[in-house]
Amino acid sequence: MNNFETIAPWAVLLCAIIALVFSFINFYSVKKKPEGTDTMKSIGEKIRKGAMAYLKRQYKTVGVFFAVMFVILLILSFTGFLTKFVPFAFLTGGFFSGLSGFIGMKIATYANTRTANGAQQGLNKGLKIAFASGSVMGLTVVGLGLLDISVWFILLKFVFKLDVDEIMAAMLTFGMGASSMALFARVGGGIFTKAADVGADLVGKVEAGIPEDDPRNPACIADNVGDNVGDVAGMGADLYESYVGSIISCGALATAAGLGFNGVLVPMLIAAIGIISSIIGTFFVSTKEGANQKSLLGSLRRGTYASSILSAIGAAVLIFTLLPENSNVFWAVISGLVAGVLIGFFTEYYTSDSYKPTQKLSSSSQTGSATIIIDGIALGMSSTAIPVIIIGISIIVSFFTAGGTIGGDGFASGLYGVGLSAVGMLSTLGITLATDAYGPVADNAGGIAEMSGLPEVVRERTDALDSLGNTTAATGKGFAIGSAALTALALIVSYTDKIEGMGMELNLSVTNPAVLIGLFVGAMLPFLFSAMTMQAVGRAAQKIVVEVRRQFREIKGLMEGKADADYETCVDICTKSSLKEMILPAALGIVAPIVVGFILGANGVVGMLAGALISGFVLAIMMANSGGAWDNAKKYIEAGNFGGKGSDNHKAAVVGDTVGDPFKDTSGPSVNILIKLLSMVSIVFAAIVVAYGGMGLF
Amino acid sequence: MNNFETIAPWAVLLCAIIALVFSFINFYSVKKKPEGTDTMKSIGEKIRKGAMAYLKRQYKTVGVFFAVMFVILLILSFTGFLTKFVPFAFLTGGFFSGLSGFIGMKIATYANTRTANGAQQGLNKGLKIAFASGSVMGLTVVGLGLLDISVWFILLKFVFKLDVDEIMAAMLTFGMGASSMALFARVGGGIFTKAADVGADLVGKVEAGIPEDDPRNPACIADNVGDNVGDVAGMGADLYESYVGSIISCGALATAAGLGFNGVLVPMLIAAIGIISSIIGTFFVSTKEGANQKSLLGSLRRGTYASSILSAIGAAVLIFTLLPENSNVFWAVISGLVAGVLIGFFTEYYTSDSYKPTQKLSSSSQTGSATIIIDGIALGMSSTAIPVIIIGISIIVSFFTAGGTIGGDGFASGLYGVGLSAVGMLSTLGITLATDAYGPVADNAGGIAEMSGLPEVVRERTDALDSLGNTTAATGKGFAIGSAALTALALIVSYTDKIEGMGMELNLSVTNPAVLIGLFVGAMLPFLFSAMTMQAVGRAAQKIVVEVRRQFREIKGLMEGKADADYETCVDICTKSSLKEMILPAALGIVAPIVVGFILGANGVVGMLAGALISGFVLAIMMANSGGAWDNAKKYIEAGNFGGKGSDNHKAAVVGDTVGDPFKDTSGPSVNILIKLLSMVSIVFAAIVVAYGGMGLF
Repeated sequence: MNNFETIAPWAVLLCAIIALVFSFINFYSVKKKPEGTDTMKSIGEKIRKGAMAYLKRQYKTVGVFFAVMFVILLILSFTGFLTKFVPFAFLTGGFFSGLSGFIGMKIATYANTRTANGAQQGLNKGLKIAFASGSVMGLTVVGLGLLDISVWFILLKFVFKLDVDEIMAAMLTFGMGASSMALFARVGGGIFTKAADVGADLVGKVEAGIPEDDPRNPACIADNVGDNVGDVAGMGADLYESYVGSIISCGALATAAGLGFNGVLVPMLIAAIGIISSIIGTFFVSTKEGANQKSLLGSLRRGTYASSILSAIGAAVLIFTLLPENSNVFWAVISGLVAGVLIGFFTEYYTSDSYKPTQKLSSSSQTGSATIIIDGIALGMSSTAIPVIIIGISIIVSFFTAGGTIGGDGFASGLYGVGLSAVGMLSTLGITLATDAYGPVADNAGGIAEMSGLPEVVRERTDALDSLGNTTAATGKGFAIGSAALTALALIVSYTDKIEGMGMELNLSVTNPAVLIGLFVGAMLPFLFSAMTMQAVGRAAQKIVVEVRRQFREIKGLMEGKADADYETCVDICTKSSLKEMILPAALGIVAPIVVGFILGANGVVGMLAGALISGFVLAIMMANSGGAWDNAKKYIEAGNFGGKGSDNHKAAVVGDTVGDPFKDTSGPSVNILIKLLSMVSIVFAAIVVAYGGMGLF
Repeated sequence: MNNFETIAPWAVLLCAIIALVFSFINFYSVKKKPEGTDTMKSIGEKIRKGAMAYLKRQYKTVGVFFAVMFVILLILSFTGFLTKFVPFAFLTGGFFSGLSGFIGMKIATYANTRTANGAQQGLNKGLKIAFASGSVMGLTVVGLGLLDISVWFILLKFVFKLDVDEIMAAMLTFGMGASSMALFARVGGGIFTKAADVGADLVGKVEAGIPEDDPRNPACIADNVGDNVGDVAGMGADLYESYVGSIISCGALATAAGLGFNGVLVPMLIAAIGIISSIIGTFFVSTKEGANQKSLLGSLRRGTYASSILSAIGAAVLIFTLLPENSNVFWAVISGLVAGVLIGFFTEYYTSDSYKPTQKLSSSSQTGSATIIIDGIALGMSSTAIPVIIIGISIIVSFFTAGGTIGGDGFASGLYGVGLSAVGMLSTLGITLATDAYGPVADNAGGIAEMSGLPEVVRERTDALDSLGNTTAATGKGFAIGSAALTALALIVSYTDKIEGMGMELNLSVTNPAVLIGLFVGAMLPFLFSAMTMQAVGRAAQKIVVEVRRQFREIKGLMEGKADADYETCVDICTKSSLKEMILPAALGIVAPIVVGFILGANGVVGMLAGALISGFVLAIMMANSGGAWDNAKKYIEAGNFGGKGSDNHKAAVVGDTVGDPFKDTSGPSVNILIKLLSMVSIVFAAIVVAYGGMGLF
């Protein structure tokens, strides 16, 4: 064991701790900002309480699942199908994934009132608070992710004295805890937020004719709670999982390529460098007085680009030092970084009303809601082409620059390169997530400004911040999908290595019936999963509609503003129904790989994973972009184009926006997690499938 | 050469001729029926003229494409990349595919007025004429398909004296002509019919408030023409292509499995038996006087089931005689037959208002158009699960009963079984297509009854026939998708055999980057293609809207019924724009395999084909079923549920129906052809890709 191997894991741990310290500092700098008027405080308190109540109950429900799974994994580890570390690593993965979401949401619910209050003094002030809150989230996710990885690595290496192959084989199974937690968080939160949103709009805006975020609407608090539990907590858990998944699967690929400890440490160190770059990047997000929306966006971009450049430089130094014979893998890292930025840009191109596609979509409203729906779906479908090509090029570049050859010894090296490109894409997650998580805070701030009757100018400023947030959210979504694809890819390859490591020879040809049927089933799963989540939103929203109607009918003086609405009941209904509804889709993600494994064997599982990856990738992009474009097409009309607010065109656009809500905020982002969870579950149950799968036929 | 080998091809040819003779007899029996009043004659004449004018111009446009491709193929055959027969077979495939559509449309445009006239005397009379017209179409398609195959086979075997491997290698490339023609017909016709339909509805029903098929609507003739050129001609060319493709790819798989002439002749003979069974089956479609809609459906079903049973018995006798050592492949044929019936049934389950899913969808209209759209998409998405499982089981059964083993010598035998299941599924096409093609005729008859002011009772009867047609059309669509999947599958495997026959070793593992990127690109293609076709419908419909508005404005007395509308201009606009708009999507299908081949090589092409197959299969089912369910949800409301016609719920359902139109009649069915065309083009250009593809990397 050389000096480097001893020091590096501790260096990674140190960077993780630095991230958490910075996150902690930001947390308290936000918290000590003034919260505003008493009304604002009281509204903020209600949202915070609702969100916390939801999370607590979610953790309880999920806790049951984790307890059951823990026992199952324990039994499997006693019977020799898993190493003894897996059940515990499963718990830490789930715990840290949940904790990422929890902290992110905690700060978001502190920052929303403070952002609204800051916006009273100016646009910059608002941005600073919202962005600081976003960076708490970003740095928490990467900090906890790397903490989990480095502590386990140190434990397995220095305490249990495992060799590098054993360490990575054990660690590869860690991600399942994080994936399950992420799926529950995304699906549950996604159902909550859209049920509240759709329910509030259907009765409040459409039937009662009161504006959005009007305090008379009993569902308005639930709507704001939803932004936090869905967009913030869900996204945090999601990206935690991609981040951890990409690093450990890349490490596993390093051992397959025979690159030893250095190969395993490179992805961890790249992530560590990314953390430092992200922290430095946050300082580039400075704003001058009198900035407008455009210069704000420029400021956020400056931060992201600075981090990317720093990360690239750091990765270059690292790779040329540690892997001198394989220094070309540097280009694999770069290809991932660039692919992430490009996918983000094209997501923006297709969904922002500054560009043609969304503007043209707005104009479809002139022939009614049917045509804007058709054109929106077509927009989303055609927007899948460029990301596919970007991912394709990124795979080619990373595979071949890493010394890949089709077949033969170079094959594993090439796949290591693909793994590194996923790590490269996610290395600057600390700051990209910060710019993304900032959005829901600004959105909430706007709601609070409205509900507490702040002056018109404040609402205008929060709207500007929110609109900026839409752009960063679109970029963030593209990024989440792109990184999910590369991570899932690395996980699939790791799975095949794991199976072959058990002595089973795979026949992964697409003409093998097991693989082929697996591909069919896999391609279908994201569709079935999306259907389940969309229907869940519909059912939950229906309950909110009934409740809001009841309150309008039964609470005297509510519409006149003389009596208070019963907000808690709406929050409670959303909580209960989203927790109930999240079970079935999540179960699909866990059960499918096991059932397919038993029927079709390991080859079929690989087929299923590949099928789900490709169809899920395309479907997720389509749903995210259709949804985003409808949202902004509506905003474009509200800005005074094609008849403006209240026109028939606007009504048609509202239909589009409502259809897009579950697309972009529930089903689409959950599909990302589904494709990773499927891989993780397959990896954990690999040994059983090898032993008992395939019905004796496959 | 034994006696059997000499006789069998002629027996196949004989059956093809028998089919054509029966078709001819039915054609004239329909034609000699009375056409009704002068108004009816005149309307029928207009529709016929419009449809023929469209087809003529379509053939002209397509003719240019065929001429260019013929020259390219000629060059390729002179430079040794193709055998000399391919360019000519390409032409015959295209010609017969086009001819199938032409004859089907010719009889449909004769039968529509005669069906309306027959319906004056009773439901049965109407059904008989419409069904006779459908059986002309069905028998023409199978007759011409088997004629093309058997004549070429006889030519190559007895005139050019090729051995069985050479014959099948040459014939495998035949399908490209049929596929290209089919794609042009489906896409062009699909755009025509939906542009006219949407355009007519948007101005006529919504703006001017006149009923559907009102003669004052200038687009009403175009709408009826569209039913013929889209649903009839397009579907005929589509299924011709599946039919021919399944038989020749199965033959190619037989040579790969070393089953010699007997193996090759089995699929042809099964098809021949299917023809005779279908003809017999048509006689089971007898109706008693006083029959209602339900007993009519029963009567159609009796015909289909009788044919299926006869086919199964015939196939058993054949296989036990010809392939005594492989007699288990009989079960492969049966698995295909059963899978076809089951997929058809579940399509009906998800889209008919006799079942829960569509009834529940109707109820979503109560919360507005957004919720019915979301639920309709979710319905379509969740309806993909069962067909995937059916196809999966059918692959397993056919592979293993045919003696398949994963790897080793049994592999090719197993794949031959999969090929046979596709042939089995399509063997009764003669009658299934008859029940399917009957629908548009009934639809047209209703339009003619309305336009010529026939008594209310006639319209009621044609509506009953039309509604029955919706059910058979739904079944037919499921069937078309299922058979396309199995055929494409057989073609993909044939492609890999062809490539390996050229001495190139394939690495088709899904972890091979070329395959993987191919899968991504392939999964994206059906989405991009659907987007293109949907946008094309939108643009074409827009032009119709402008023209109809102009006529209402400029033609004095039109709305009062005192002046005639200028129907020809609308037909002309639809013709021009659909022919222009079909170029780009069709080009995508032809160019994609060539570009992917050059960049990623043959392994990448296989990945792309598999990706397009699985994602296209799922997407096509989703689009067909969402569209069908919206259509029937609207009809369910019109039948007096949830507020009935004219209610707000009905308006919401109309939005759903309009969104579903391009889904189910343009994009969805075209995707079927796309996945087959991609395979066909790949096969034709295989030698070039082997020589020059892969950029030296793959």
